[in-house]
Amino acid sequence: MFYIIGLGLSDEKDITLRGLEAVRSSTRLYLEAYTSILIVQKERLEEFYGKPLILADRDMVETESDEILRDAHTQNVALLVVGDPFGATTHTDILLRARAIGIPTCVIHNASIMNAVGACGLQLYNFGQTVSLVFFTDTWRPDSFYDRLRENVDLGMHTLILLDIKVKEQSEENLARGRKIYEPPRYMSIPQAVAQLAEVEKKRQGGVVIPERTLAIALSRVGGGPDNERIVCGTLAQLGEQPPNVFGEPLHSLVIVGRRLHHLEAEYAETFAVNPILWREVAQNVYNCNFD
Amino acid sequence: MFYIIGLGLSDEKDITLRGLEAVRSSTRLYLEAYTSILIVQKERLEEFYGKPLILADRDMVETESDEILRDAHTQNVALLVVGDPFGATTHTDILLRARAIGIPTCVIHNASIMNAVGACGLQLYNFGQTVSLVFFTDTWRPDSFYDRLRENVDLGMHTLILLDIKVKEQSEENLARGRKIYEPPRYMSIPQAVAQLAEVEKKRQGGVVIPERTLAIALSRVGGGPDNERIVCGTLAQLGEQPPNVFGEPLHSLVIVGRRLHHLEAEYAETFAVNPILWREVAQNVYNCNFD
Repeated sequence: MFYIIGLGLSDEKDITLRGLEAVRSSTRLYLEAYTSILIVQKERLEEFYGKPLILADRDMVETESDEILRDAHTQNVALLVVGDPFGATTHTDILLRARAIGIPTCVIHNASIMNAVGACGLQLYNFGQTVSLVFFTDTWRPDSFYDRLRENVDLGMHTLILLDIKVKEQSEENLARGRKIYEPPRYMSIPQAVAQLAEVEKKRQGGVVIPERTLAIALSRVGGGPDNERIVCGTLAQLGEQPPNVFGEPLHSLVIVGRRLHHLEAEYAETFAVNPILWREVAQNVYNCNFD
Repeated sequence: MFYIIGLGLSDEKDITLRGLEAVRSSTRLYLEAYTSILIVQKERLEEFYGKPLILADRDMVETESDEILRDAHTQNVALLVVGDPFGATTHTDILLRARAIGIPTCVIHNASIMNAVGACGLQLYNFGQTVSLVFFTDTWRPDSFYDRLRENVDLGMHTLILLDIKVKEQSEENLARGRKIYEPPRYMSIPQAVAQLAEVEKKRQGGVVIPERTLAIALSRVGGGPDNERIVCGTLAQLGEQPPNVFGEPLHSLVIVGRRLHHLEAEYAETFAVNPILWREVAQNVYNCNFD
């Protein structure tokens, strides 16, 4: 059997019992942790499982699937992924490949940011499509996310924005010289995301995000329990001005609040507001929330 | 501490280790299982936990929250919910109430249909807002979902439709006589959902769903493993014609495929098609999927 097992959002205890059974029954375990991360390291998982983990980057999952699937006709092999196997990164290619060569497959689900974002108090029903925001570089500042965001904003829906992470990057020099030396991991911060949004808004002039009038919610380490999880909300302008430590440790996500905001959603999120009075004022005056 | 613990989608083994620890540490356990269900009964959970469960319907969670929260200042109390605590039904009211009276809270996430729907092969990124379809009665045939569906369809996004369940209904006679006798549980089937969609389309004439040209995917018991999970796809017309047992056991959900369908999404879903040739034809000719 070939398993793909979601590890959930935070640490070794977020796996399900069904997932842990599959881990215990597997002879080889691969860990894909390049598009998202847990707050614990590989070694902690290995100790907890009592088994070694083979790190698998995107490239390996995509190009060496036959090696990953080796012997899965007769043994159990598992690919462990952060969040859910069908979260932001899907693993359909390797599942198709397994089926094509007659290996039975089993997906074990878990929470992902795509549903745990509900922790901010906004109804999942009212979210439109999810978008990703990548690190801008000097020469690459893609803004196609803006059109997706506009579609949601025009309809009044909320938008989950996933912020880029870089955990296995090479410098241009190391890349050119073929040296497998990697830069320290980088995680996009909330102020950086706000700045990139503002830059694209300025260029595109669509009125999709207006720093003083658009409400937003920053989430960090959702599902990490009271000691780790951090939710902070305010206008985009306010979030952009906060020192980075206000937002907790990575990973971060950002929600742009749509104008269908219900007063119960606003009231729940208010408990996380940088300035609850201003939060309510904007919800009332810009979003027409009726708090009676 | 007041915990709200997501149980995931299928049976007693879908709880996370973190969730199980919280269950073990709690002196009272409530189970909310009226808006969704596991495939196992309360008794199996009780046996597994070694503790009794108190059934809590929506009404109780909403109106008797102080009883649920009793003693949670000094003991652990847990509310168990199917899926994720912030899935289709949110539990923000009782969390707000707990905070208002100074009780610490902790939410333990899990998979819900809102993210596990990715099992059908469509990218979660490409889903718009989620809608619910309720059982039509002689006098109540609400069609506001149609406007939401149209918004998604117009943008080319996929739509997850959650199908109604009735697990604690009284007949009009029993209600009138105040007899607490409940009808057998009912779960909307896929053909019934397709018929209701067709009825509303006929009335509203928006061209949002066209039985022969709209692709759809039926999901049942997602996350229940190879023996339980069932995914079936085809045109809406095809799904409406299948005998109900084709779709597996409840709960069912239905996805309306948006026209941004990518050929990789279509190829993955094709393995679940009633008729793979017709599936591909419609994907190609109506959805302009390019399979090269």
